[in-house]
Amino acid sequence: MRARDLAVGFPTVTLDTPALEAARLLADQDLPGLVLVDDDGRPLSILPGTQVLRLAVPAYCQDDPALARVVDEAHADLFLRELGDRTVRECLPEQPRELPVADVKATVLELAALMARTRSPLVAVVDAGGRLAGAVTLQSLMDHALRP
Amino acid sequence: MRARDLAVGFPTVTLDTPALEAARLLADQDLPGLVLVDDDGRPLSILPGTQVLRLAVPAYCQDDPALARVVDEAHADLFLRELGDRTVRECLPEQPRELPVADVKATVLELAALMARTRSPLVAVVDAGGRLAGAVTLQSLMDHALRP
Repeated sequence: MRARDLAVGFPTVTLDTPALEAARLLADQDLPGLVLVDDDGRPLSILPGTQVLRLAVPAYCQDDPALARVVDEAHADLFLRELGDRTVRECLPEQPRELPVADVKATVLELAALMARTRSPLVAVVDAGGRLAGAVTLQSLMDHALRP
Repeated sequence: MRARDLAVGFPTVTLDTPALEAARLLADQDLPGLVLVDDDGRPLSILPGTQVLRLAVPAYCQDDPALARVVDEAHADLFLRELGDRTVRECLPEQPRELPVADVKATVLELAALMARTRSPLVAVVDAGGRLAGAVTLQSLMDHALRP
């Protein structure tokens, strides 16, 4: 079994996708993250769901739990409105040392090692030209590995 | 909306749960992680799926992608067998500075800020006595926040 056998089509976003649209994709399709691609369809990064949240949470609340507590319940419920017109460009985490991107020929073990190292439950799979061929989730990897 | 309204029952594991059983729970129920509790039902930590994988991947493959590549496909497919008799105790990540654990009274904003800070898509919710009341996923938080 290779990455190409496990990879499935996966929603992509670009740097200019509105962050709110990214949040909707994550929520509607129950995804662990999104694949960020450039204009040529080459994966640039994986955008974890927690980092989309990060943009929606006012900076003072992120840094100090006590400050998040003073926002009343009614306003707290509406926090995603804070995303406003912002785009994915603004919610990218600091670039990690290694991207969760694998070649179509990667084995299940290589995919598992990559997820473990990058702590990413989602790996983008690219063809020899560096173009996105699909993505593999931790879920589908586990399903395969546990199959009797 | 408070944490108590969003929290749902969630599978728990203890330090002595076999790692393979944890892997099965993650895969069968499509979970972003598991809640680790002590013998009194108090949450000790959140165990992300990627960290269960980590135990199954031989250390030399984690550190060096080139070495994962030399394991042939047939053996790579069976990597989860490496879990053997090991337990959850052995796949805990280094303890983070802040645990993704919230009080039942936490607002949606507090939960979002906590997920963003800890980069955890799963938060354990505890009652006043510190006992587990349930857990909130990034998914359910997003669903709530995006509801019109």
